[in-house]
Amino acid sequence: MNCIVAQSGGPTSVINSSVFGLVEANKDLNIYDNVYAGLNGIEGILNRTIINLSEMDSAELEVFQHTPSSGLGSCRYKLKDSSVCEDEYVSLMSILNELNIKAFFYIGGNDSMDTTAKLSRYAKDHNIDIKFIGIPKTIDNDLMFTDHTPGFGSAAKFIATSTIETYLDSTVYTDNGIFILETMGRDTGWLAAAGALASVGDKKAADFIYLPEVAFDTIKFINDVRETFKRNNHVYIVASEGLRDENGNFLTMSSQGGAHDKFGHTQLGGVAHYLRTLIINAGITNRVKTLELGVLQRCAMHSASKVDFDEAKMVGRDALKYAADGHSGYMVAIKREETEVYSSSTFLIEADKVANKVKYFPTEWINEEGNNLTIEAIEYLKPLVFDQPAYKLSDSLPKYRVFRM
Amino acid sequence: MNCIVAQSGGPTSVINSSVFGLVEANKDLNIYDNVYAGLNGIEGILNRTIINLSEMDSAELEVFQHTPSSGLGSCRYKLKDSSVCEDEYVSLMSILNELNIKAFFYIGGNDSMDTTAKLSRYAKDHNIDIKFIGIPKTIDNDLMFTDHTPGFGSAAKFIATSTIETYLDSTVYTDNGIFILETMGRDTGWLAAAGALASVGDKKAADFIYLPEVAFDTIKFINDVRETFKRNNHVYIVASEGLRDENGNFLTMSSQGGAHDKFGHTQLGGVAHYLRTLIINAGITNRVKTLELGVLQRCAMHSASKVDFDEAKMVGRDALKYAADGHSGYMVAIKREETEVYSSSTFLIEADKVANKVKYFPTEWINEEGNNLTIEAIEYLKPLVFDQPAYKLSDSLPKYRVFRM
Repeated sequence: MNCIVAQSGGPTSVINSSVFGLVEANKDLNIYDNVYAGLNGIEGILNRTIINLSEMDSAELEVFQHTPSSGLGSCRYKLKDSSVCEDEYVSLMSILNELNIKAFFYIGGNDSMDTTAKLSRYAKDHNIDIKFIGIPKTIDNDLMFTDHTPGFGSAAKFIATSTIETYLDSTVYTDNGIFILETMGRDTGWLAAAGALASVGDKKAADFIYLPEVAFDTIKFINDVRETFKRNNHVYIVASEGLRDENGNFLTMSSQGGAHDKFGHTQLGGVAHYLRTLIINAGITNRVKTLELGVLQRCAMHSASKVDFDEAKMVGRDALKYAADGHSGYMVAIKREETEVYSSSTFLIEADKVANKVKYFPTEWINEEGNNLTIEAIEYLKPLVFDQPAYKLSDSLPKYRVFRM
Repeated sequence: MNCIVAQSGGPTSVINSSVFGLVEANKDLNIYDNVYAGLNGIEGILNRTIINLSEMDSAELEVFQHTPSSGLGSCRYKLKDSSVCEDEYVSLMSILNELNIKAFFYIGGNDSMDTTAKLSRYAKDHNIDIKFIGIPKTIDNDLMFTDHTPGFGSAAKFIATSTIETYLDSTVYTDNGIFILETMGRDTGWLAAAGALASVGDKKAADFIYLPEVAFDTIKFINDVRETFKRNNHVYIVASEGLRDENGNFLTMSSQGGAHDKFGHTQLGGVAHYLRTLIINAGITNRVKTLELGVLQRCAMHSASKVDFDEAKMVGRDALKYAADGHSGYMVAIKREETEVYSSSTFLIEADKVANKVKYFPTEWINEEGNNLTIEAIEYLKPLVFDQPAYKLSDSLPKYRVFRM
């Protein structure tokens, strides 16, 4: 009796910790004979690129668990509805059957929860005894029902740290000008919000934080920036790549060319440059520097959060237990406990309730002016970046291990 | 009898460690009654924005020493020759005299060494008993005579770490495309070279590394990238912002607008985007991602090198001793000792020999094809990124302290 795990969608710094947690839990609880892994998600399973994690050297897995990026490879494979195209379902179930798989764990975002829900439904409808459990991961923190997603805390920590450090860098002269930090966050402002954690002493680093949840008001932006620049001779701005105007249109296409990914998402970027042009054209100053943090946000394991790392492991461990208890078609969600010191636990939520939905940044955590956050937002974010996980080094640089085709 | 220290030019992650080393050495050796600091470099001293570091709380200085960016503020003030404009010299010497300053320490790059040389010469010519000592700092590693510059090792470490992590991030799919990392380095390739340190297991992360020291050959670039992409379905490229064509012209103006700074340096950036366009136009693939590391390279203290941090402190300490021994008009340079385990010491070099000159990356450390580095380059770089300095935290984020006007 075996199980299999695979990863899908964009990487995070701690996604492999979930795999490790699952393998470790299986060693402790002795539920499945082997934990297999499909390389490159469901696409890899369909292509039979499968490895056996239970046969892996434990020292190697130890390095693997601290490795950022999808260590099992990923895919952007959108499973069609079985009523439209049953072939893939038949192929997949047949492969899983061959391997005597009784549980399938899919680590991903809301597209992966859609896949989990579809496969679970198909298996139930066809009396196939395989449990399907979704394990959340996304730096975007945009999955419904879960308090937050594994991967977000580490991204938030890297963003907050970079905000502090670039804020300092942007204040060394007497004529510092304006600095704009662009974060990821296509639909939601969770990542940009992490800039609110950045302080030097009692001074908040970011004067303004702009999220996609608030329609961008160009006139107000220019007035705010002009006034603050006049007062401080410096302005520090954090902006989400996904800023939109009052009609819901993105302010800008991508600096990466404005292409669309396979799910039809517009690839963004370039908001910082857009805001820079607004500031210069408004005649405020020509000294405007921009920085796009880019993919570092989802792979800077060297700046990860231990709370995030441990929770990624927890959802992996608990996924195994939930499957063994007979659950299927659920995602493992995180509950924030009402303890004095931060703690969390897991619970199950139907995967199809999470699928293809988006959890927006609460508008009540955005200030009235729409250009910064409230204290509630900071209180929510603060524990998620707590502490730093150890990681292995080789010649003083991070030592990582991935499994690739 | 007092001394004064100031910082000039671009920040580094460890520049404040040099200030701390100097203050600490003075506490140990009891040479000067007070260590003053001019805020915002020589400009600040001329404006009398001066603080007394000897009166600072030691806990505060402890935080300060681990703070990236010029903690005393910086300037880009170019001192004219005293034969052209003596006023500044007269003002400065008068202020220093008022404060009973006997030694002036200037932490900076080759422009600052020019200032140090000029001031020392002026003082000698006018029988003014003040010693002028330059303390090197620059992430660019482009100062002559010194084996390397404080600030470079930490920048190199952040670049190498980011290369490893973004390499992994860029390999998670089966159709990964091409990734281009752009480093700073206007005139020299030292920073881009740090990408050569990045490995995952036995695999070097960077397929190609391009430095300004080699005239960029577009035809060869396209052929190299095309061939590697055909073979691996992935290419990872590290490129210096300062790449030039065979006529010595920069490949691209800045993504930051192509402005010039006060020393007349062209502000660069945008090379990654330029190379991306070459690749797409050549029809190799449209899947090309770029990342400009930007100012993170000079302020990511959270990823600093302890060797670098300790050497920054060493040049600060030794600067004080050299001044006390009566030297003036020199820069404190670093000598790499011929020990089995890496170690270094300092020596003096005339500041005017360093001023306005550039140490290029040795062409003999570049491979024959001009698209990667030799093992000698890696052996040179490796010890400079060794180990990590401790730093203070507040709510799990870096705790920093700067002195600003």
